[in-house]
Amino acid sequence: MTSAETFHDLHRGDRPLLLPNAWDFATGAALVKAGFPAVGTTSLGVAAAAGKTDATGDARDETLALARNLSRLPVPVTVDIEGGFSTRVADVAELATELASFGIAGVNLEDGRADGTLTPLDHQTTTIAAVKRAAPQVFLNARTDTLWLADGEPDLKETLRRVRAFADAGADGVFVPGIAADDDVRAVVEAVDLPLNVLFMPGKTDVGRLAELGVRRVSTGSLLFRKALEAAVATALDVTGHGEDAPAFSYGDIQDLVSR
Amino acid sequence: MTSAETFHDLHRGDRPLLLPNAWDFATGAALVKAGFPAVGTTSLGVAAAAGKTDATGDARDETLALARNLSRLPVPVTVDIEGGFSTRVADVAELATELASFGIAGVNLEDGRADGTLTPLDHQTTTIAAVKRAAPQVFLNARTDTLWLADGEPDLKETLRRVRAFADAGADGVFVPGIAADDDVRAVVEAVDLPLNVLFMPGKTDVGRLAELGVRRVSTGSLLFRKALEAAVATALDVTGHGEDAPAFSYGDIQDLVSR
Repeated sequence: MTSAETFHDLHRGDRPLLLPNAWDFATGAALVKAGFPAVGTTSLGVAAAAGKTDATGDARDETLALARNLSRLPVPVTVDIEGGFSTRVADVAELATELASFGIAGVNLEDGRADGTLTPLDHQTTTIAAVKRAAPQVFLNARTDTLWLADGEPDLKETLRRVRAFADAGADGVFVPGIAADDDVRAVVEAVDLPLNVLFMPGKTDVGRLAELGVRRVSTGSLLFRKALEAAVATALDVTGHGEDAPAFSYGDIQDLVSR
Repeated sequence: MTSAETFHDLHRGDRPLLLPNAWDFATGAALVKAGFPAVGTTSLGVAAAAGKTDATGDARDETLALARNLSRLPVPVTVDIEGGFSTRVADVAELATELASFGIAGVNLEDGRADGTLTPLDHQTTTIAAVKRAAPQVFLNARTDTLWLADGEPDLKETLRRVRAFADAGADGVFVPGIAADDDVRAVVEAVDLPLNVLFMPGKTDVGRLAELGVRRVSTGSLLFRKALEAAVATALDVTGHGEDAPAFSYGDIQDLVSR
């Protein structure tokens, strides 16, 4: 069985796939050693580690380099490619081909844009279809940012419209970060016949409950990266005797750190 | 005052310089935001993040790329260049010139080798002198691994011989990782008229006591990187309900992770 086939299968187990997200080789390897059957990447972590902002399409080179490196791991690897790092469909398809060439098992492709708006749906579905033609074996997790856009209110109706269109375009799974309410999760599960990926949010999501609702993948997004950064700063401050001053880092805090 | 001048001055304050070690841009920026007046790098972290082993001279490109990136920070940056990534003196001098060209304030140059032996002292002092000629303003922290070699017993006599020779060759500071006993610290402080850098080791070193003994710099080496990795894995395992199984990572554990 190929790594991509194994990865597809991991979405059909008794329990949802718990997918941790790495941002460098060491974290990926450590997560595999800890027993996780697959590893994803976090675009925030990959971009911030390189001193770049997330979701602005600037970290294509770092993403490719990391993917190549992580492909050494003995488990399937899925790569967060933001919006594909280009508005040109052919560029995104070429990226998928390249990732597939060194054995990457999956990609996440999102419709949120840096300006807080959504990519027009027809452009997104055209890109999804092109990626599937270019790399049919790669698990394409189609993400919609309808529920956590910087600009605009959470929109469940648009979420359902988009995940259905993504499914029709050939996506292998759908990802709705920010979704948490039982009724919302149930509505998406019922809307499409594809595995639903939910973002783990401490205090807001419960893996057992998500499993009952039919969620097939729970991923950690930038959480591990943010906790690692907090641990680094807390450890350093502890040496100075000010460990209690250690800050927490939100997504926005990290975007600010690298924007200076 | 240049960044390098500021960095030299930080070794002459009322208290030792507490220098945290970053391995990517995000950690460097977060440490600056937390108030640290200077940032170093950890070669273990830089290498492992790239899927390479430490102290084998393989991470020259990643080290240079990180240094260039960290030079955006508003504080002095000192770079761990292992043994210089080459046995050719001219290569190491060229690296120092390049680092100085984008404003790096300091470098660490070590005499431990991947095979667990020490670089012959005359070669090390020749390299130190060449680096100082190539980049006179850069703070050269000359490290001896006499006390924590993989191969051989800790040797204080050889430590003293080496730090004296490093001072004579033009080093700006000396670094003896693994040193902790009061008498050993005192002996090195008395042996050379240069700032002594000691590695912070939880439970083995006390910053207040090191300050009393005349230590001028306390750095964290790979500690922050190892704690960050632990936090990442612990957070991921916590999602699965097995947070209590989270492992600790030693230097050797991380070398093993990337050697597979």
